[in-house]
Parts: sequence; structure tokens; C-alpha cells
Amino acid sequence: MTDAASAAPSAVVLLSGGLDSATCLALALEAGFTPVALSFRYGQRHAVELDAAALLAASAGVEHVVADLDLRVYGGSALTADLDVPKHHSVAELAAEGIPITYVPARNTVFLAHALALAEVRGAADVFIGVNAVDYSGYPDCRPEFIARFEALANVAIAAATEHGRRLTIHAPLQLLSKGEIVAQAVRLGVELAATISCYDPRPDGAACGHCDSCLLRAQGFADAGIPDPTRYADVSTGGPST
Amino acid sequence: MTDAASAAPSAVVLLSGGLDSATCLALALEAGFTPVALSFRYGQRHAVELDAAALLAASAGVEHVVADLDLRVYGGSALTADLDVPKHHSVAELAAEGIPITYVPARNTVFLAHALALAEVRGAADVFIGVNAVDYSGYPDCRPEFIARFEALANVAIAAATEHGRRLTIHAPLQLLSKGEIVAQAVRLGVELAATISCYDPRPDGAACGHCDSCLLRAQGFADAGIPDPTRYADVSTGGPST
Repeated sequence: MTDAASAAPSAVVLLSGGLDSATCLALALEAGFTPVALSFRYGQRHAVELDAAALLAASAGVEHVVADLDLRVYGGSALTADLDVPKHHSVAELAAEGIPITYVPARNTVFLAHALALAEVRGAADVFIGVNAVDYSGYPDCRPEFIARFEALANVAIAAATEHGRRLTIHAPLQLLSKGEIVAQAVRLGVELAATISCYDPRPDGAACGHCDSCLLRAQGFADAGIPDPTRYADVSTGGPST
Repeated sequence: MTDAASAAPSAVVLLSGGLDSATCLALALEAGFTPVALSFRYGQRHAVELDAAALLAASAGVEHVVADLDLRVYGGSALTADLDVPKHHSVAELAAEGIPITYVPARNTVFLAHALALAEVRGAADVFIGVNAVDYSGYPDCRPEFIARFEALANVAIAAATEHGRRLTIHAPLQLLSKGEIVAQAVRLGVELAATISCYDPRPDGAACGHCDSCLLRAQGFADAGIPDPTRYADVSTGGPST
């Protein structure tokens, strides 16, 4: 337990265990917040990302809360239902696809709602989410307008705001960065990149498939930043993603 | 299975199993919607309300989805944590209390977020929630401004709205009714009032404590409506709530 973990948290950081949320956590720490990291066991096929989240939180010395919520009951996504995760060979191929089947309905609304609950109970006024609206998969709940409206909602939703004057802020510090810029920030902040898992369809040991949307965008980010890709790929014979 | 249960749903109705949500379901049916009812196993001490919800949904001939989500991990409420549910003797005593310890942080934000996920997957454009801003316990997420902001959020949050032009509407038909008016509506619509469970601290068999906030408000509603209270109270020797 470091000081950060024993002090009352001032911010809730949504931490999936991927590159973006790990960078978001590092930015919250750099900005002087005392974060509590929040992850979800939501029925995702890539639950190994929770191990990555636990490792990243421990390494940053921050408290880590894992909440159970079953999004499988709604279905409708390749991440939570019995559907195949689509595989591609390039980011260009991916961009032509529109909103993909890996989209989880209302996921960021659900995740931010839970973060709001934790923020209220713990006395935090700030919530961080690592959404990105530039090099992303077209999910509507990654856009700036979504974040702005959630913040407007948060400030009438909880007693801490309506009765006690606590002003909630939803931070999305990666919102307008390219994947290459996110990688550069992560390197600057000393994020343990090799420990992050972005893959939607990893092996049980965490090795990345190299061909899902998330792997392709991540690999492109390393290429753009000119940083060697530290990702452990399941099948090195295919050479990993071509970027 | 009636027709309502086998057709594609056009609305999601949040159904706790209490008086308000049961009345809300009946109003959605009366308005011509084909509802799917959504309940949550969220770590509430009064989980027997889920049995009531199942019974009410079956009796109305609508599909019933129960989603698991653990709000206990956040704590902070007498409904989900190891705190005593406060007991009172009258509504007047209750009104002096401010926002009570039975307030569950961000609960309606969380519930509506999950309802939005189900609505998106099932093709529904309408969500019903039985919140009430008149005879209520002072919870901020029961107010009209909260509902309006959630609707504004919903319309930028999901692909169905942003990509496919589906316009989401959040209905809160009980919002401006008194408890007495809600009881009168329930009677008019033939809601099985004796099957509803509103109590925050019921016995395992569903009998109501008679003295929690929710019991007091409910009993006041029956008294105001001039309807005999069909609630089964745990301790009839105390005469139930005095209204």
C-alpha cells in the first residue's frame, strides 16, 4: 500500500487493463489526483484484461475495485455473446467496416454510471475515462458530445452534487489524441506497456490475437509513435498485424 | 407466453416489484407498448422483491429479464450495505430527515444505463421508469431534470440513435403524481396490488416491515386514495404504519 492507496481517493479512473486506460490512469496521477481504479467483470470474453488491470493498479500504487455486472444477459456484441470477433489485416480494412460487432451496447454509459456510484460513496469529484475519438472504432459513446452530456447528467444525478455542492467533472484526456500520441504519452509517463492488454480475443495467457480491431489500432499507434511494439502476440509466425 | 411476450419488445420497463414500477408497467401496456420488464439482482437486502417482479411480469404476460450487478462493492447505502434500515412512525417524521441512508448512490443512473443497453439490443425506443418526484424520499435521481438529462444522454450514447436515427424517449409517467394518485391509477389498471412489495426491509416471505420510508409512503398512498391497504405486514400487533 502506498500513500495513494491509503488516502481517500479524489478521482475514479476506469481501468480496463488496456493501453488507453493505463495511460489515462498515469495522466490522473500526474495531474495530482489520488485515484481509485475501477474495473468490471462484465462477461467479456477477454477477462484476462482484469489481471492486467490489477497488475497496473498495484504497480501504480492505487486501490483497485472490481465490480461484477453481467452484460451477457443483453447480448448483441461479439465481446459478450457467442459471436466471433472479426479479424482483419489492416487498419484501412477496419475503417471501411462502420460500427463493428465488437461494439457493446451502452457500455460506456453503464461504466460511467457505476463510476459515478463509486465516486459518490468515496467522496471523489472527478472521473477519468480513456475514450478516444480519433483513432477509434466508431463507437458513439467515445465522442466528446457523449462525455459532455454524461457530465451534465452526473451533476443532477447524485446527492453529493445536488445537496452538497460537489461539482462532478468527467475527464477524457485521450479524447482528441491519435493512437500514436497516446503511445507517446504512455512512454513519457512510464506506463508498463508490455503489461497492458488491448486485444478483444486474447489467449488465456493474455497473448494478443494481432488481428482484431483493437490489436490493429494499437499496433498502428506503436508504428506511428516510432516505438517498438512490446505486445506479446499469440502467433508470431504471421508476423503480427501489418500496419 | 402471451402475444406481448412473443413479439419484439417496443419498450423496456424497469420493474422492481414495488407499487410504482408495477403501475408503470400497466401504464406502458395501456399506452400500447410491448414491454420487456427489466429487474436487477444488485445486492439489495430486499431481494424478495424480485419474486414479486417475476410474478407481476408473468401475470401481465410480458418477458422478464433479470440482470446481475453488484452495487454492494460500492457500499454507502442501507439497502446494499450492513447498515440498519431506519424505521419511523409517520410520514411527517420521515419528511424531516433529508436524503436518507436508504439512498443508493447513482442507482437510477445505473438502472437506466442498463435499460438503455437492453433497449438498444432489442430494438426498443422507449424506456419506462416509475420514479416519482412528489411523495418521494428526496432522492435526486427521481427528479424531472434528471430524467430529461438522461434522455439527452441516451440519444448520443447508442449506435441505434446516432447511426440509425432511433429517437429514445425516457418515460416517467408517475413523476408528477402523488402516492394517492398512483394507488388510484393502479386500482384503475387492475394492478395486483397485494403482489407488489415496496418494503426496504421485508421478511424473507415478503411481509412488509411497516415502518421503513417506503412502507410509510405506500401506506399514506392507500390512505389518501381511500383504498384498503392490501399489504401483508410482518407485525400486525403494531397495527402497521400510522398514516
